Amino acid sequence: MTESYRDAYRSRRVMVTGGLGFIGSNLARRLVDLGADVLLVDSLIPDYGGNLFNIAGIEDRVRVNIADVRQESTMHYLVRDREVIFNLAGQVSHIDSMRDPYTDLEINCRAQLSILEACRRRNPRAKVVYAGTRQVYGKPDHLPVDERHLVRPIDVNGINKVAGEYYHLVYSHVFGVRACSLRLTNVYGPRQLVKHDRQGFLAWFIRLAIEGAEIQVFGDGSQVRDFVYVDDAVDAFLRAGATDACDGDVFNVGGLEPVSHRDLVTLLLDITGTGRVRYVDWPPEKRRIDIGSFYSDWRKLHDAVGWQPSVGLREGLTRTVAYYREHLPKYLDQNGPAVTA
Amino acid sequence: MTESYRDAYRSRRVMVTGGLGFIGSNLARRLVDLGADVLLVDSLIPDYGGNLFNIAGIEDRVRVNIADVRQESTMHYLVRDREVIFNLAGQVSHIDSMRDPYTDLEINCRAQLSILEACRRRNPRAKVVYAGTRQVYGKPDHLPVDERHLVRPIDVNGINKVAGEYYHLVYSHVFGVRACSLRLTNVYGPRQLVKHDRQGFLAWFIRLAIEGAEIQVFGDGSQVRDFVYVDDAVDAFLRAGATDACDGDVFNVGGLEPVSHRDLVTLLLDITGTGRVRYVDWPPEKRRIDIGSFYSDWRKLHDAVGWQPSVGLREGLTRTVAYYREHLPKYLDQNGPAVTA
Repeated sequence: MTESYRDAYRSRRVMVTGGLGFIGSNLARRLVDLGADVLLVDSLIPDYGGNLFNIAGIEDRVRVNIADVRQESTMHYLVRDREVIFNLAGQVSHIDSMRDPYTDLEINCRAQLSILEACRRRNPRAKVVYAGTRQVYGKPDHLPVDERHLVRPIDVNGINKVAGEYYHLVYSHVFGVRACSLRLTNVYGPRQLVKHDRQGFLAWFIRLAIEGAEIQVFGDGSQVRDFVYVDDAVDAFLRAGATDACDGDVFNVGGLEPVSHRDLVTLLLDITGTGRVRYVDWPPEKRRIDIGSFYSDWRKLHDAVGWQPSVGLREGLTRTVAYYREHLPKYLDQNGPAVTA
Repeated sequence: MTESYRDAYRSRRVMVTGGLGFIGSNLARRLVDLGADVLLVDSLIPDYGGNLFNIAGIEDRVRVNIADVRQESTMHYLVRDREVIFNLAGQVSHIDSMRDPYTDLEINCRAQLSILEACRRRNPRAKVVYAGTRQVYGKPDHLPVDERHLVRPIDVNGINKVAGEYYHLVYSHVFGVRACSLRLTNVYGPRQLVKHDRQGFLAWFIRLAIEGAEIQVFGDGSQVRDFVYVDDAVDAFLRAGATDACDGDVFNVGGLEPVSHRDLVTLLLDITGTGRVRYVDWPPEKRRIDIGSFYSDWRKLHDAVGWQPSVGLREGLTRTVAYYREHLPKYLDQNGPAVTA
């Protein structure tokens, strides 16, 4: 695939569920620059990632429809004329899914079925790109993890995310909806939720470092992870949505290179110049749903659409720290201020 | 494991969800013979497998509670004093799941979560043996299929069944509920639903043969499957429920040897002496969710608890044909006659 995938979005009718959230809003920014007709759907559930400040500066170039993906008739209406649907709405907290498994099921499993039923009934040729997760693999048997690795989620969130993903594949194979799933590893960057620590530990670490607080790392920090800067993740969505090469299949979206928690925090503190780290014992309830080291093999997506990560961790963290140093207060109030504020 | 697993059920408080259904009622019969305190839970949904005639002769030795596993407070109440729960309630029609995916989700996915939440809150040390399915593997990459094969369901029913299964594993690993899943291949035998053709093709073929009707086989009949006689499936449940060796894991329950559809029907017609076969083209909507040949490797369960299938196909079919020749009318009326009839 050449760079022409960007041209594919000119005047394209696009919908982004979770469009006021972290990845969704970064994607929206790219889409308006590419000339797309952008509809953002978000429920602004308190404690989730939706934040109206995330679209500050592009408010007049997108249409925002506040709605919950669980509401079936709404989704039937909204999907009807959309050519590409980036399906990013979700409950993303592992911990919350174990406390309240039903809500996680309703959003990550049942609502995904609703979106696909809406496409089947109202817009059967829609292109749907689903935000999957590396969580579906659970604790890896081997590293790096490619798409042949067994799916073996270790928490309720992982189960519902994989069910949501499988629905996309089945609706693609059986009903002709052109859907695929991107299994995202840890994504970080501007516009991520930092109000609480239940959605991605790196964003939380960044907030703590900026605030000069102590970062607690569980164990000895030797576990490794891979990280994708949000612009690279957005690029993966754009490429997958512009082609039929990904239909009916799953693709890892991984980072440039694995890094240990210890090295990650050292780098972060070097960039911020504030904050500090302390190594502490694993809390038992977190230990039980921890997966050890993880990093993914993303060559399948590269082979299909030419994608590869381009932003290194130092560069990505530097940009992210600069963003939150400027805008952190906007991410501490419930749902952020109104767009017009 | 020696044969002592049978002794484990004497005076044991056991619950069987789907207890008036095909496998559930055969399991109930064995359990009462082993001296268990048996509670059968079934919703008797029309078109599903529950049939009061299935417990004819043991009515006075079991307790029947008509209830739907989707009803949370009911399940919270019923599980509270049960030592072993055989969790067999489910929607089993692939075709129905594609027509009405929400009902399949509510029963096979959400209700499983309810049962496990009920155990977590009211009976956290319960032993739960879940009726999984070979459907979770989808179209096999290789034969025979063992438990290392990728999970890749190809219809909505398969997705919800695998989500239901994963819940069992996660509740086992995280919350200490001792749960496992038996991934059953095609099970056949007395007391299976034969009212319609949407729950297992072999039972339907048996009915057609007995009625002297034409059996239609799709394609050339060269696809192979493995079949488990219901008494062998029941034995697998009994063994898994009597030990901790299976906790938190999945096990295939497969047949003695694979057989082609062609050879299967030839054998069946030889046994019945009535009926006939015709080979027809694949209907497109069935072709799309067909998986080709399948048979499973069940050595993992054998290694864990000593299980192996013992009833060959000729013997099993002969017994099944004899059963339906005697009782077929009881399987044609909605829900069968009342127990007291």
